[in-house]
Amino acid sequence: MASKICLEYKANASKAFKWLQIADLQIKPPPPLHPKTFEPIKPEDLSPLFPDELIRQEVTTDRFVDIPEEVRDVYKLWRPTPLIRAKRLEKLLDTPARIYYKYEGVSPAGSHKPNSAVPQAWYNLQEGVKNVVTETGAGQWGSALAFACSIFGLGCEVWQVRASYDSKPYRRLMMQTWGATVHPSPSMLTEAGQRILQNDPTSPGSLGIAISEAVEIAAKNPDTKYCLGSVLNHVLLHQSVIGEECIKQMEAIGETPDVIIGCTGGGSNFAGLSFPFIREKLNKKINPVIRAVEPTACPSLTKGRYTYDYGDTAGLTPLMKMHTLGHDFVPDPIHAGGLRYHGMAPLISHVYELGLMEAISIPQTECFQGAIQFARSEGLIPAPEPTHAIAATIREALHCRETGEAKVILTAMCGHGHFDLPAYEKYLQGNMVDLSFSEDRLKASLANISHVTS
Amino acid sequence: MASKICLEYKANASKAFKWLQIADLQIKPPPPLHPKTFEPIKPEDLSPLFPDELIRQEVTTDRFVDIPEEVRDVYKLWRPTPLIRAKRLEKLLDTPARIYYKYEGVSPAGSHKPNSAVPQAWYNLQEGVKNVVTETGAGQWGSALAFACSIFGLGCEVWQVRASYDSKPYRRLMMQTWGATVHPSPSMLTEAGQRILQNDPTSPGSLGIAISEAVEIAAKNPDTKYCLGSVLNHVLLHQSVIGEECIKQMEAIGETPDVIIGCTGGGSNFAGLSFPFIREKLNKKINPVIRAVEPTACPSLTKGRYTYDYGDTAGLTPLMKMHTLGHDFVPDPIHAGGLRYHGMAPLISHVYELGLMEAISIPQTECFQGAIQFARSEGLIPAPEPTHAIAATIREALHCRETGEAKVILTAMCGHGHFDLPAYEKYLQGNMVDLSFSEDRLKASLANISHVTS
Repeated sequence: MASKICLEYKANASKAFKWLQIADLQIKPPPPLHPKTFEPIKPEDLSPLFPDELIRQEVTTDRFVDIPEEVRDVYKLWRPTPLIRAKRLEKLLDTPARIYYKYEGVSPAGSHKPNSAVPQAWYNLQEGVKNVVTETGAGQWGSALAFACSIFGLGCEVWQVRASYDSKPYRRLMMQTWGATVHPSPSMLTEAGQRILQNDPTSPGSLGIAISEAVEIAAKNPDTKYCLGSVLNHVLLHQSVIGEECIKQMEAIGETPDVIIGCTGGGSNFAGLSFPFIREKLNKKINPVIRAVEPTACPSLTKGRYTYDYGDTAGLTPLMKMHTLGHDFVPDPIHAGGLRYHGMAPLISHVYELGLMEAISIPQTECFQGAIQFARSEGLIPAPEPTHAIAATIREALHCRETGEAKVILTAMCGHGHFDLPAYEKYLQGNMVDLSFSEDRLKASLANISHVTS
Repeated sequence: MASKICLEYKANASKAFKWLQIADLQIKPPPPLHPKTFEPIKPEDLSPLFPDELIRQEVTTDRFVDIPEEVRDVYKLWRPTPLIRAKRLEKLLDTPARIYYKYEGVSPAGSHKPNSAVPQAWYNLQEGVKNVVTETGAGQWGSALAFACSIFGLGCEVWQVRASYDSKPYRRLMMQTWGATVHPSPSMLTEAGQRILQNDPTSPGSLGIAISEAVEIAAKNPDTKYCLGSVLNHVLLHQSVIGEECIKQMEAIGETPDVIIGCTGGGSNFAGLSFPFIREKLNKKINPVIRAVEPTACPSLTKGRYTYDYGDTAGLTPLMKMHTLGHDFVPDPIHAGGLRYHGMAPLISHVYELGLMEAISIPQTECFQGAIQFARSEGLIPAPEPTHAIAATIREALHCRETGEAKVILTAMCGHGHFDLPAYEKYLQGNMVDLSFSEDRLKASLANISHVTS
C-alpha cells in the first residue's frame, strides 16, 4: 500500500544512464543531413555549437553512458524522484486499474528539464566553455539551464520569446534569481534579431527566432556554446534516468506496467520515461503498450509526415528524419507551450515507425478536465503538458472500468503548474476552447517541405 | 557524502507525532484566559470553533499522539521530506561547518503548512463537519488548507486579505484549482466585514479582520468550523513531524546537531523543527544551541513583552501568555508576510522563558543576500520566511570559519519562493530597503495592552 516508492542512490548507480538506440535496435535510425550538402552530418560540423562529449553522446553506439559523479551529486538534490500510486484518483474513477505516476516536479526548476541541463552544463564546463546560450519559450528549459549553470558557476544567457517574456514574468525572474541573463527575443543583440525588428519592431517572437539568435551568438564566440532542451539524441539519453528509476521502483514493489503513457512535444519527457522500458520490451522481459499523447493542435506523430525536415523555422539546422507538420507550421496557442513543436525527436519517430509504440492526440479541454480531477484527488497541480498524459491515463482507467481489467498504468507527471495557474483559471471560468485542427494549414506547411524530401 | 537523506515510513511510524509540552517540561505553561471572564478557558469554550479531537490535542498531557492512518497516507505524497547537506554552500562560504537543511517545499502547497492542514481537515471530517473556514495573508496557509480539503472532499472557504488577494493572484488561483472558495477580506458576507467596508470601502484588509470574518462564519454555522495555521498547541504538535524526521535522518548518517536554527512568525515551523530536539535536550541526550530568527521589523521574542495578550487585532480571541508587540502593532510591510505576526506561540514563549532556546533578529536585505547565495549554490529558491533561517545559518557558518570549529548546523527551508519572485527582483535591482525599527510605535502598542496585564 506504499503511495510513494523512494529509491536511494547506491554506489553502483553510476550506470543509470542507459539508452536503447544502437545497442538494442536491429534497424538503425537514419542519420541527420547537412542543411547545405544534404550529406550525413559529421561530428565536426557540430563542434561550433556543442562540446565534444555531447557530440560523442549524440552518435554513441554504447548502450551505457556513465553519469559523472559531479552530475549525480547535483541530481541527488531531487533524484530519485518519487513514483506515486494514484490511489485517490483510482477511487474517484472507480477503476480496477492501478495507476502509478512518476513525479518530476520536485526538481528545483519544477520539471524534468534539469535532468539534461545539469549534464549539459557540466560537460561544457569540463571543456573550458565559459558561457552557454539557449532559447526558451514557456520558460521550463531556460530555467532548468539557469539552475544548472548557477550550480557550476557557468555563464548563462537565455533568449526568451518576447510574448512569453512579457506574459510570464515569474519564469524570467526565476532565471535571473539563478544569475542568468535573459533577453527578450527578437533582440538587437544579434543580426537575426535585428533583421526581424527592422521589419516588425513589435514582433512577439517565436521559438524559431530565439533559436536563431542563440545559435548565432554561440557560433560567433569561441568560449560560448549552445544548449538544446529536447529533440536531440543526447538529451533523450540524459532523460532516460526517469525510466531507469521507474524500472527499479516498479520492481521494488513487484509491479509490471501493462500500459505506459507519456506526453510528447519535442519528446524529451516521453523518451525519458519510455525508452528504458522499450529496451526491456526488445529484450523480451516485458511487453507493455507504450503510448505517446500529443495535443490535437500539434499532432506531429498522428498527423505529420515521416520525412527529412529542419528543426527550426528558419531552416538553419541539420535536416532530421522525423514526423513533422512542416517547419513553418504554427500551432494554435494552446496552454501546453512545451508541446507546440512542429517535429518529433528523430529517435522517437524511428521507434514509432518500427511499431514499438503508439500515439494518440487529445484536445486541451479534456486535458484540463483530467487535470482538475487529478489535482483535487491526488493533490498535485500538473503543468499543461502532462495534463495530456493524465487525460490519456484517465481514458485508459475508465476503459478498465468497462472491461474489468486490473491493468497497471504507468505515467509521468513531468512538471508542476505553479506558473501556469492562469490557464486553470481560464478552464474553471469556462473560457477555454478547442479549435478544430486546420487540415488546410497542415497541407500548406507540408507542401513547403516537399523540396527537402525530393 | 550523501546529499539527500531519504527516510522510508515504516509500519511502526504511527507515533511520529511527539510533543514536549506536558510530558517533558517540569514547569507547565500558563493557560489561555477567557477574553471576558479572564478565567482559564475551558475546552467547551472552544467547541463552536474546533472539533473535539483538536481541542483534546490542544490541552493533552500525552507525550505521543498517534497520526491517523488516513493522514499518514496523505503525508506520504511528500513525506518524509529530504534532509540535505548544503555542501556547495559550505564550499562557497569556505567554512569547516557542516550545514544540513530540511526542505519542506516539496509539499503540494509548497511549504510545511500541509503538515497541520491535513490532520485538521481529517479530524473535522471525522466529526461530521461539512465546511471549514480560515483566513490567509500571503496565501501559504490558505492553499495548504484548500489542498487538504480537496483530498478529503471537505468544503473550504478562505478569507484572503484584500491586498494579498489583489497582488498575489497565483496563490488565489491555486486555492481555486483545489476547489476552495476564496473571498477578498473585508467582504460583505460578514458583519465584521460590512462594518469595515462601511467605514472604508477600499480597505486593503488585514489578517486581524480576516480572522474575525472566518471566526464569525464558523460561530454562526453548526456544520462549519474554523482552522488556524499557527500559534496554537495542536498546530505545533502536528508540525513536530518535521523535527522527528530530522532526528531519524541525522541518526542515520551519524550526525548530531550543534546548532539548530529556524525562522519564527507565529511559530509553527520553528516549533516543528526544534521541539523534538528540545525533548532530547531535556532528556540529556543532546545539547544543541536552539536559535529562533525573526525579522527586525517584527521582533516579538527579542523586543516584545512576555504577557497576556489577544491573538487577533480586534481582541476577540482568548488571551494567551506570549511574547507580544501588542495586538495592534502593525509591522512594516516586509516581504516575509508569514512572519508579520504581533505575537509568538505561547508554547515557544514559555520555552524561551525557561532558557531552553535563544532568539535573534535579522533585517530583510541580509536575508535576501543570503537567499541569493543559497539559491545560486544549492539550487533551491527559498520563500522570504526561511531566508531568515538561511541568513542566520550563514552567520554561524562564517563564525565557524573564524574559529575553525566544524560545527553541525541544522536548519529548515520551510517553503519555496515560486510565488515570491517579485521580492527577489526588488532585491536584485537594489530597491529593497531596511527601515529602522520604531521603538515609539512599539511603546504605543505595548501601552495599549497594559489594561490586559493589570
